[in-house]
Amino acid sequence: MTTSFPMNDGNSAYSYFNNSQPQKELIDASKDMVRDAIIEKLDVEVMLSSSHTFRIIELGCSIGPNTFHAMQRVVDVVKEKYHNIILEFQVFFSDHVENDFNTLFRSLPIDRSYYASGVPGSFHGRLFPTRSIHFAHSSCAIHWLSKIPKELLDEKSPTWNKGLIHYGTSNIDVVNAYIAQFEKDMEIFFNARAEEIVPGGMMVFISPFSSYIRLVEFFGSSLMDLVNEGKLDESLVDSFNLPMYFPSPQDMTKVVEKNGCFSIEFMELAYPKSKLVDEIDAKTFIISLRAVLEGLLINHFGSKIAEEVCARTLLKSEEISTWMKANGGKSCQLFVALKRK
Amino acid sequence: MTTSFPMNDGNSAYSYFNNSQPQKELIDASKDMVRDAIIEKLDVEVMLSSSHTFRIIELGCSIGPNTFHAMQRVVDVVKEKYHNIILEFQVFFSDHVENDFNTLFRSLPIDRSYYASGVPGSFHGRLFPTRSIHFAHSSCAIHWLSKIPKELLDEKSPTWNKGLIHYGTSNIDVVNAYIAQFEKDMEIFFNARAEEIVPGGMMVFISPFSSYIRLVEFFGSSLMDLVNEGKLDESLVDSFNLPMYFPSPQDMTKVVEKNGCFSIEFMELAYPKSKLVDEIDAKTFIISLRAVLEGLLINHFGSKIAEEVCARTLLKSEEISTWMKANGGKSCQLFVALKRK
Repeated sequence: MTTSFPMNDGNSAYSYFNNSQPQKELIDASKDMVRDAIIEKLDVEVMLSSSHTFRIIELGCSIGPNTFHAMQRVVDVVKEKYHNIILEFQVFFSDHVENDFNTLFRSLPIDRSYYASGVPGSFHGRLFPTRSIHFAHSSCAIHWLSKIPKELLDEKSPTWNKGLIHYGTSNIDVVNAYIAQFEKDMEIFFNARAEEIVPGGMMVFISPFSSYIRLVEFFGSSLMDLVNEGKLDESLVDSFNLPMYFPSPQDMTKVVEKNGCFSIEFMELAYPKSKLVDEIDAKTFIISLRAVLEGLLINHFGSKIAEEVCARTLLKSEEISTWMKANGGKSCQLFVALKRK
Repeated sequence: MTTSFPMNDGNSAYSYFNNSQPQKELIDASKDMVRDAIIEKLDVEVMLSSSHTFRIIELGCSIGPNTFHAMQRVVDVVKEKYHNIILEFQVFFSDHVENDFNTLFRSLPIDRSYYASGVPGSFHGRLFPTRSIHFAHSSCAIHWLSKIPKELLDEKSPTWNKGLIHYGTSNIDVVNAYIAQFEKDMEIFFNARAEEIVPGGMMVFISPFSSYIRLVEFFGSSLMDLVNEGKLDESLVDSFNLPMYFPSPQDMTKVVEKNGCFSIEFMELAYPKSKLVDEIDAKTFIISLRAVLEGLLINHFGSKIAEEVCARTLLKSEEISTWMKANGGKSCQLFVALKRK
């Protein structure tokens, strides 16, 4: 089974590159929070000794352009805070080895004010030398699990996720299996970052929250439509589950406390004020989800079914739009700023 | 005009990945020299302060596998020398942004003992933060010029390189234009490395020397065959020149002295003892040159002519083999070890 789930690569109609507007909205909305975290909590003098290189990592960078905006913003705010210190910035864009780094590198902004570098590998493991990183940033990424919880693949267990592809409307056993996998993954994640980040160094997560959970199930219902029309075997849908868990503040507190090396400086469930996620029209939203999910669908169902499922879900735009409006109030993102003790 | 000349990418029949045996021979032959340079000249205590990360850069990494052998060897020898110090290694694989980093990353050895990173950009310019690098390695790369000397593109000048594609059998004006471009490029190269490498840090170059110079002209003669058969306009050949200059020890001394920040620790023209470059059969050699040159040929002549030129040059294997045997004694490589003052 694959344990890496790249976004649609390249520069085509359904590529992540051209369809990552909602993720951009998330980053834009968290702009002030990242800024506050840096201005109020970062202490460069403590971290840098003889070197004047400030090292930033982006975990789950995908292929841009969102990651470039996010990284430039971090650089700009640190520069603003330490305008009297000459700092050089080195940014490490990291993602799975299957990520399309060629596209990422070829679209690097020419006017960037940092040295750029790409690091292939899973963030569920070590990626950088000990105490070499000053700031870690991860947007729309930590909700990716390293794998599907294995209990979900047992047809005879109460965690067999019949007719569904995610945990949003599932039974409590399925939800718990997802939570357990998230906790296992985060244990490895935090152990790795605790080694890599210098004392005083910071880590910021921006993670989509509740509304996303259910939206993906529209792809599930398109799959079930195909089952009901006799075009797809139901067991194939039952055995397909998305490897994502969207953590709550409680989940986050639990994994941070278990690790013990980081303090939570800020944490909030934020409701973006401008350009709400909910205000993006349903079509844009579905296409952007497609750029994220299509690889997973192709892997499990083949490209013909994947294509049809995406097309059918797009036809549900109106229904989805209605659903989004009815559930708009619940859409939000989790913002967490941590400091290495 | 393009200023980057990537090797044939991917994993196909004529890819650099599958056709880089001669370059591997060069690296293998220089194994002991790199080892000697590290054992005798490197002083880690001077360079590393609080951090225990030893940072290595490979300039002109292409897509492997040669670069992986070279980097692992550097790591192993430094570890051997400093077996009583716990060091962590971070290797930055650098090449032009058009290089196929996806292939490079996907073929990274699983059992490597370093943190890997890719850095897109020309080594004729800054790539890394100030004083952040401990060891720089470059094999079969510094002979690439940033561009064709512009004098060669003037039809009315004595530097118009009629009927030839390189300087090996050209008039002295052409040779001097190449040398001048090399010196200009190396000035920029050394200025950048002088900033990036810590005091006491080392730099090693391995560069093919004389035999290569003339071998590329067999591709030139295939082009002229097409001209003589009326299939190609001669002015197209006249205006095509390879952007490579193979430095002599004198050239190297001159550019190092001009920069002034590095001392030459070792420099020698080495005649590889085992598996001589000359002992590789001509066919293997021509195919490996094709993996290097085909992109340039396609750029200037289109893919149909490029394909035909490569095929025709391969047909000259016997002639080339005879030439290689007659000129075998002259085949050698330049090895240079430098230290940042």
